[in-house]
Amino acid sequence: MNGRLLITCPDRHGIVAAVAGFLAGSGANITSSDQHSTDPEGGEFFMRMEFALEQGDIGALGRAFAQEVGERLDMDWRLTDADTPKRMILLVSREDHCLVDLLWRHRRGELPAEIALVASNHPDHRTDVEAFGVAYHHVPYPNEPELLELLGGADLIVLARYMRILSGEFLEQVGAPIINIHHSFLPAFAGADPYRRAAERGVKIIGATAHYVTEELDAGPIIEQDVARVSHREGPEAMMRIGRDIERTVLARAVKWHLEDRVLVHGNRTVVF
Amino acid sequence: MNGRLLITCPDRHGIVAAVAGFLAGSGANITSSDQHSTDPEGGEFFMRMEFALEQGDIGALGRAFAQEVGERLDMDWRLTDADTPKRMILLVSREDHCLVDLLWRHRRGELPAEIALVASNHPDHRTDVEAFGVAYHHVPYPNEPELLELLGGADLIVLARYMRILSGEFLEQVGAPIINIHHSFLPAFAGADPYRRAAERGVKIIGATAHYVTEELDAGPIIEQDVARVSHREGPEAMMRIGRDIERTVLARAVKWHLEDRVLVHGNRTVVF
Amino acid sequence: MNGRLLITCPDRHGIVAAVAGFLAGSGANITSSDQHSTDPEGGEFFMRMEFALEQGDIGALGRAFAQEVGERLDMDWRLTDADTPKRMILLVSREDHCLVDLLWRHRRGELPAEIALVASNHPDHRTDVEAFGVAYHHVPYPNEPELLELLGGADLIVLARYMRILSGEFLEQVGAPIINIHHSFLPAFAGADPYRRAAERGVKIIGATAHYVTEELDAGPIIEQDVARVSHREGPEAMMRIGRDIERTVLARAVKWHLEDRVLVHGNRTVVF
Amino acid sequence: MNGRLLITCPDRHGIVAAVAGFLAGSGANITSSDQHSTDPEGGEFFMRMEFALEQGDIGALGRAFAQEVGERLDMDWRLTDADTPKRMILLVSREDHCLVDLLWRHRRGELPAEIALVASNHPDHRTDVEAFGVAYHHVPYPNEPELLELLGGADLIVLARYMRILSGEFLEQVGAPIINIHHSFLPAFAGADPYRRAAERGVKIIGATAHYVTEELDAGPIIEQDVARVSHREGPEAMMRIGRDIERTVLARAVKWHLEDRVLVHGNRTVVF
Repeated sequence: MNGRLLITCPDRHGIVAAVAGFLAGSGANITSSDQHSTDPEGGEFFMRMEFALEQGDIGALGRAFAQEVGERLDMDWRLTDADTPKRMILLVSREDHCLVDLLWRHRRGELPAEIALVASNHPDHRTDVEAFGVAYHHVPYPNEPELLELLGGADLIVLARYMRILSGEFLEQVGAPIINIHHSFLPAFAGADPYRRAAERGVKIIGATAHYVTEELDAGPIIEQDVARVSHREGPEAMMRIGRDIERTVLARAVKWHLEDRVLVHGNRTVVF
Repeated sequence: MNGRLLITCPDRHGIVAAVAGFLAGSGANITSSDQHSTDPEGGEFFMRMEFALEQGDIGALGRAFAQEVGERLDMDWRLTDADTPKRMILLVSREDHCLVDLLWRHRRGELPAEIALVASNHPDHRTDVEAFGVAYHHVPYPNEPELLELLGGADLIVLARYMRILSGEFLEQVGAPIINIHHSFLPAFAGADPYRRAAERGVKIIGATAHYVTEELDAGPIIEQDVARVSHREGPEAMMRIGRDIERTVLARAVKWHLEDRVLVHGNRTVVF
Repeated sequence: MNGRLLITCPDRHGIVAAVAGFLAGSGANITSSDQHSTDPEGGEFFMRMEFALEQGDIGALGRAFAQEVGERLDMDWRLTDADTPKRMILLVSREDHCLVDLLWRHRRGELPAEIALVASNHPDHRTDVEAFGVAYHHVPYPNEPELLELLGGADLIVLARYMRILSGEFLEQVGAPIINIHHSFLPAFAGADPYRRAAERGVKIIGATAHYVTEELDAGPIIEQDVARVSHREGPEAMMRIGRDIERTVLARAVKWHLEDRVLVHGNRTVVF
Repeated sequence: MNGRLLITCPDRHGIVAAVAGFLAGSGANITSSDQHSTDPEGGEFFMRMEFALEQGDIGALGRAFAQEVGERLDMDWRLTDADTPKRMILLVSREDHCLVDLLWRHRRGELPAEIALVASNHPDHRTDVEAFGVAYHHVPYPNEPELLELLGGADLIVLARYMRILSGEFLEQVGAPIINIHHSFLPAFAGADPYRRAAERGVKIIGATAHYVTEELDAGPIIEQDVARVSHREGPEAMMRIGRDIERTVLARAVKWHLEDRVLVHGNRTVVF
């Protein structure tokens, strides 16, 4: 089987040697490895290793790692099975460009996940979604209890232009990370109607931001951003059209990286390996 | 001689025909022409024309234009002599990368201007500036009266990383447009220390913004912006280094466009032809 | 009605005035205007004007223009009716990302065209295409006569990753411009298998190119290009995945600009207004 | 002292563990680590580690590494002392924008090197170079023996727009890697006069390429590339001006990465950590 080991811990002498030594000694062949340290002296250390395990199971490996390495080096760590696709649920409102893009990428094999279902506060996308063999649930807003029930068992929830605010209570109970795509280059134009405000401010570049959702609106850890040039020729409507292309690629990259366990959250920032 | 005609007026039927007809009738050969309308019905119309005038002078042309076209069509207009370089003054504080970049571009013939002088609240750059044959004035901060005197007769003032705030009174008296380079992708991280704040927010792209200075800090009309990718690897210091490359090119483009009369201000926005 | 006037002619004194004067005199209100001259002295002049015509028809306007302006100034010109969408036909082989992207953009109203049909040398995309209410024709390769018949009456043919070579005879007979998307940053890696060759050469940036098809393979006038960064981490397969995002946006931009009559061909180059 | 260990070897089980274990056992604290494998099964493995060594010297560390790790794992490896700046020599012809840019970056502390001297086939840049306290040698072309003598003892030679072809014999004898900046997006427009040819081909994006020099002209391993957008408005001259900005930043990045031992050559490609 193929696994991934993700580690966050205080930086100190010998971490790479300890982890690599443990994996080698456990018959795990490291196929990819990334590290980052905010400061070799007293900073935070981040590591991601992919490995192939010829025999044994990930549960036993994890127990051994905890005993032999994790506790001793004060690590916050996570072992994931790279062969089991994550269970992903998409939420969407009226604009369908991000939703459709994720469905197509998934069908082309770009996203290592199972799409469990799509839920929306609009009934409109049922035919399009069902054509991909994916269940569609219309959950009129507000109905957080029904939504919570649908989202049970998800490994990842993606707000693919879901334009409703989720309560702090909801976020506490949902039990899976949530990735949102914001249609501006955060922190600029946080909140509603960013293209109109970008046009009014006369910016020459617009962007989109994929971030984890936290209780504070549009302020969660940023995973990915991208931009496009605009000029005086583009009003809010043209910006919206150009923005759609940025939004869908930025969201798709963030989702892909999350599904591949490449994103480590560190306070309000991310390390993306 | 070569001239440029810049027009802002309410959009209406027949503007292009009227202006082009006037210029053709005056023996002016249009060599370049750009238009923009915010809305053909009741919007604002912007035009820039470059022309070669075989004989006659620009003063006479202007008087004729006012009578025959400008007043009738309710135009805000400006005629400039493209053969006379503008008189540009640079202000700088400690960081010299924008200053040096402008001096080198000017020496290579990229900037159609005369650099009248450089003024700074630091004494440090004297040798470097004088090597270009440009006068250097050290004006310790605060001394707005001395600065105002130095800036008299300027057509354009460029804040090439000048880190002091200029008072509203100063801006009223200075009598020339001022272009500033802000080391962030405005409106994000307006104010001080943008790279540190960008690093703290964990953005994945940083930028710089060249804008006209108005009394409200960092809020004037944006002329040009550009960006560069960063990752978790880059802290504030690396961002500063990467940012220097963006700052100097963004500022140079904005200055060049201003010198070529390509920038029309429209409320708090710009039209850049 | 709304119309567009596209002009190519030797640059000389008074063109803008003549054209703008004619349109104003014909009751046409110019809503947008772009010009370009390769050289005001003896160069080539290009112009695109959009206008609203309150009464009268485009045929009469064209006859008057020919008489009063076009012949006198030795113009190559074209008048198009902006209210009548062009008839567009898409050709595709196995890879569907460009096809699907164009179909979705069309459904969202981004592309002012009627999609008459989709033809392919593969049977695979029938269900997906018909879900958009568009006819799907499977034309096994080679069968240029059948293809020619299908393409009759098209205003624009788009090779949305159609991987078969069209003969010179075919191109002569087809009677409509053809836009192709090439999956490299031309002129680099013209011909087959560009991503593999890009990976072998070790380039740090890959790209895609939309161009008009001419008899010489991958050498026609370029309409649009775009790029993305790659590193040693990306082999040919990852490049292909990243490339799909570039290909579809580059092709969509080129098609949109063509449909809006923004592209003028000049020898082997394009002017894109 | 601070050191860097660079390794290329056949990929196999246990490399990271062996190297990290050796360094930890030698009292070296790894501060940064990067790996890349072209294929975990039978591919090539690349690694770069930065470390701080509390006591001992790099020579002894290298001898121990050779015995305990290097030979056993069939490694091609290199240990460098990160505290000793490399000795860099710049060659330039008429265009000075890359030269000046490197001199300024060096003065600002961006490039960890000693600039030993500048040599040119033109006498023109003497004053500018000497103002930086750097020796300037005018070596009229062709005079490879004199050039070879000047370049003796260099760790890195940078062709900062040096427009003369160096013979195969010269390259064999020079004894240091050479980085060149080519003013096109290679492999497009290899050879002379790339901007003119780019303008003729009508490309919409231009670029620059920094690469190691090999005997085959413009075909050596690419270190870095970057691009800028152009349109029909830009002829060869404007492209040249825009290109200067790309050339200098691309070259500076490549030089910086080389000086920091981040570039590993692999056949005709590079791994850049």
